[in-house]
Amino acid sequence: MKNAVGREIPDFLEGYGQIKPFKGAFATIPTIRKYAPKVKITAPGASKLVDSLEAVFKKIPIQNGMTLSFHHHHRDGERLMGQVLAVAEKLGLKDLGLSVTGGPFPFHEFLIDYMKSGIITSLVTSGIYGSVAKAVSQGVLAKPTILHTHGGRPRKVQAGELQVDVTFIAAPSADENGNLTGAVGPSACGSLGYSFADAEYAGTVVAVTDNIVPFPLTRISIPQTQVDYVVKVEQCGDPNGIVSGTTRKTTDPAKLEMAETCANVIKASGLLKEGFSFQTGAGGPSLAAAHFVSEMMQKDQIQGSFCAGGIHAYLVEMLEMGLFKAAFDVQSFDLQTVESMAKNPNHIEISADFYANPFNNGCIVHQLDTVILGATEVDVDFNVNVVSGSNGVIMGGSGGHSDTAAGAKMTIIATNLTRGGKYPIVMDQVTTVTTPGESIDVVVTEVGVAVNPRNEELKRRLQDAGLPVKDIQELKKIAEDTVGVPGKPRQDGRIVGVVEYRDGTVIDVVREV
Amino acid sequence: MKNAVGREIPDFLEGYGQIKPFKGAFATIPTIRKYAPKVKITAPGASKLVDSLEAVFKKIPIQNGMTLSFHHHHRDGERLMGQVLAVAEKLGLKDLGLSVTGGPFPFHEFLIDYMKSGIITSLVTSGIYGSVAKAVSQGVLAKPTILHTHGGRPRKVQAGELQVDVTFIAAPSADENGNLTGAVGPSACGSLGYSFADAEYAGTVVAVTDNIVPFPLTRISIPQTQVDYVVKVEQCGDPNGIVSGTTRKTTDPAKLEMAETCANVIKASGLLKEGFSFQTGAGGPSLAAAHFVSEMMQKDQIQGSFCAGGIHAYLVEMLEMGLFKAAFDVQSFDLQTVESMAKNPNHIEISADFYANPFNNGCIVHQLDTVILGATEVDVDFNVNVVSGSNGVIMGGSGGHSDTAAGAKMTIIATNLTRGGKYPIVMDQVTTVTTPGESIDVVVTEVGVAVNPRNEELKRRLQDAGLPVKDIQELKKIAEDTVGVPGKPRQDGRIVGVVEYRDGTVIDVVREV
Repeated sequence: MKNAVGREIPDFLEGYGQIKPFKGAFATIPTIRKYAPKVKITAPGASKLVDSLEAVFKKIPIQNGMTLSFHHHHRDGERLMGQVLAVAEKLGLKDLGLSVTGGPFPFHEFLIDYMKSGIITSLVTSGIYGSVAKAVSQGVLAKPTILHTHGGRPRKVQAGELQVDVTFIAAPSADENGNLTGAVGPSACGSLGYSFADAEYAGTVVAVTDNIVPFPLTRISIPQTQVDYVVKVEQCGDPNGIVSGTTRKTTDPAKLEMAETCANVIKASGLLKEGFSFQTGAGGPSLAAAHFVSEMMQKDQIQGSFCAGGIHAYLVEMLEMGLFKAAFDVQSFDLQTVESMAKNPNHIEISADFYANPFNNGCIVHQLDTVILGATEVDVDFNVNVVSGSNGVIMGGSGGHSDTAAGAKMTIIATNLTRGGKYPIVMDQVTTVTTPGESIDVVVTEVGVAVNPRNEELKRRLQDAGLPVKDIQELKKIAEDTVGVPGKPRQDGRIVGVVEYRDGTVIDVVREV
Repeated sequence: MKNAVGREIPDFLEGYGQIKPFKGAFATIPTIRKYAPKVKITAPGASKLVDSLEAVFKKIPIQNGMTLSFHHHHRDGERLMGQVLAVAEKLGLKDLGLSVTGGPFPFHEFLIDYMKSGIITSLVTSGIYGSVAKAVSQGVLAKPTILHTHGGRPRKVQAGELQVDVTFIAAPSADENGNLTGAVGPSACGSLGYSFADAEYAGTVVAVTDNIVPFPLTRISIPQTQVDYVVKVEQCGDPNGIVSGTTRKTTDPAKLEMAETCANVIKASGLLKEGFSFQTGAGGPSLAAAHFVSEMMQKDQIQGSFCAGGIHAYLVEMLEMGLFKAAFDVQSFDLQTVESMAKNPNHIEISADFYANPFNNGCIVHQLDTVILGATEVDVDFNVNVVSGSNGVIMGGSGGHSDTAAGAKMTIIATNLTRGGKYPIVMDQVTTVTTPGESIDVVVTEVGVAVNPRNEELKRRLQDAGLPVKDIQELKKIAEDTVGVPGKPRQDGRIVGVVEYRDGTVIDVVREV
């Protein structure tokens, strides 16, 4: 069948089950009840402290076929998966499901061996990077990998679509009764927002820490009421893997220009006024765009309401300048942000549910005025791909892309027209649809700005402001004139990846290459 | 059948269902899954603001037979039930179930008319006071009233035993998207801990506030993800009903002496050392006991770990003196406490689940070293009654009595031997068992201290410390010699109240008088 973005998807997929086709950003309404996790008990006086990961495997006990989950709050400093899976290997376990809220990342290359040997047989994540992504594309797993969004992750858990048997939470500080936080400790990582859903729903919750503090921990992110075991290890995560905050604006003139255009788009849109809310990443032209927006806000004495998402040092500075009342932090992107969350009461740790789950009483991305996002490919229908390269190989995932795009009043895609002067980024049809065109308002490139025809008023405003508005077809033509039209990857391989939209419908699939 | 405290209870009770008999404080182990509330959705851009309570009744819509819930965080300043039920009456609704986390209180007398007219036909609460209690005892409701504990309340909700259709949360501050707190606002009440379970599980969550703040509220107790509607009213609760903090120690010599005995028992028990944890109320000799304990801690330079429960000004002072690292606050008992919770990060708002639910991974009362509690009656088996008077008429309820008694290493009952020089408090058999004797360690009276024979070591320690240790039979005899043995109330009336132990088993019943 064809879904609402015209992608051919099967009704049923072995290893995945029945497929619900994507019908539109807000077209699928939930009619279910939440998954019912088991009622637990910890006897008074019972100790939760367990000496080693191996001991906790035996206590639970972890068995073949179980799904284990991990979270990506330490980013490149994630150190838990390796330690836990080494135990699984030692104990001869097989057929484990792996759920990670983000990643595997390039340094997780060791996972490929676990996949080849059948220790890991399935993967559910918001994005895969590096050689694990390549291996998945090449079919290392028999079951299709599920790629969800950051908001889709807690939704899946709440719906019982993803049933985690045992979650391992890297906890930079814990007390002996299992009160946890990432705010402080030698491996402090800031927000633990991506682990909250698993703490609430997983069959068994194992906190792994390198810093046991005297009871009670007073800064509590995850409460003892949800934690079964506390395991002390040498290092639960490497804070050096959480990028040290650099708030320097890029000096690349092309990027600076694109960033300035983004800021001018925001200004021209009419959204930059009292109560403005904003999300942007730290990479590419985003940080520079934040700089320009900050200057505009200071000049016009605008106090915004909030910034949200992965929070980075520059947003922290804007918060501290009073440009925002609050920063809603589902993940802290650098050490300055970690420090801010620990000390600033307006820097608020939130769950991924609060951040972006489409199926609750209102996640924060639904209150965004604007978000600036990137793209691997954009097509003339404004569909965006951030899952695969133009060769069809997985190299990312939605993360919060389609969540924020759906929620924000205005979604800006900031991208060069071509990649490395070799491949077009604006094209007829993206290789993999991650975010539907209906959620995208503007594509900002170095040669011009294309506005989604669904948003006529915005187009007029940008034109009135003198911005270089072009038709998306025109951008495509310039891109193709510059680097040519590459061949499309074959689309007849086995399905190795299912790209779920935030509501659990399938927006696209990725095939073996 | 007879339960573990020897009470005769039926197997089945009309209007209640199958009865699970009390088997012992930790003898019943849960084998169920949690109740699965429906997955909700709030469309982006949808407004949650509703003009009036009547409008919200019609929007939901509230229908005959539904269960509505309320919470007692404003204590004597509770003003929501009256406003909401007046709308129910105006709209001609009937057969509503009423669930309150505490109360009705004496000033809720108007509820009797709603009960008589069939608008309210059932009641579930942790305790009833004043004329409503009397009316319930006299059979105003056809269905038996369920009396649960503070920890039993979230357990019942999580188990689906209590399914709340619509919860009304009095929210001293709210933003338009339904982020709520009791920490600030003209009706500030401190902790909203008793409403957390309903915010998570109720079919519809209505926040009622008199203080809408610009989005986003930055101090969030209940998140927008759980709230369906926000209704503005003139007053959601009267802060004057939250007792203004008086930290004056009683000057009544008898009470002072009993308080000093309690403190000496704590000292002699060996529990008063680094990491000491403590709960005590603000009434009777409790506050004075806290004074003595505080002095001992200061003198011996002991830093405790936490105090918990209903927090009052004197515990706040101990927290500020550094005698405790943290105060876990499920309900703020006075305005000084409200202020402390708003400003002191070590004064931590907790849910009733975190406070006392026996069926999670460890509530805070299970970590208590000692608690000082009151009693209406104590019997020679150390069973305590705080539900009914000796005439069998309901005049209270467990609240956190049996929760803390079960959890604390040492539970002290501080009570006069007789009430008003007329009725014995220590007796052969309490009229209604609220808390089983197995949870009680010491009974402190003005004439002596009785130690539960289950705790031989404690008895020895108290004797060694020169405390006036007596046999409980001896205390009973003195009481009876002083005021005589009153007749027992008849026990042949219809069952009007079911006293649930914290685990949901039935520890006793109350009959119509």
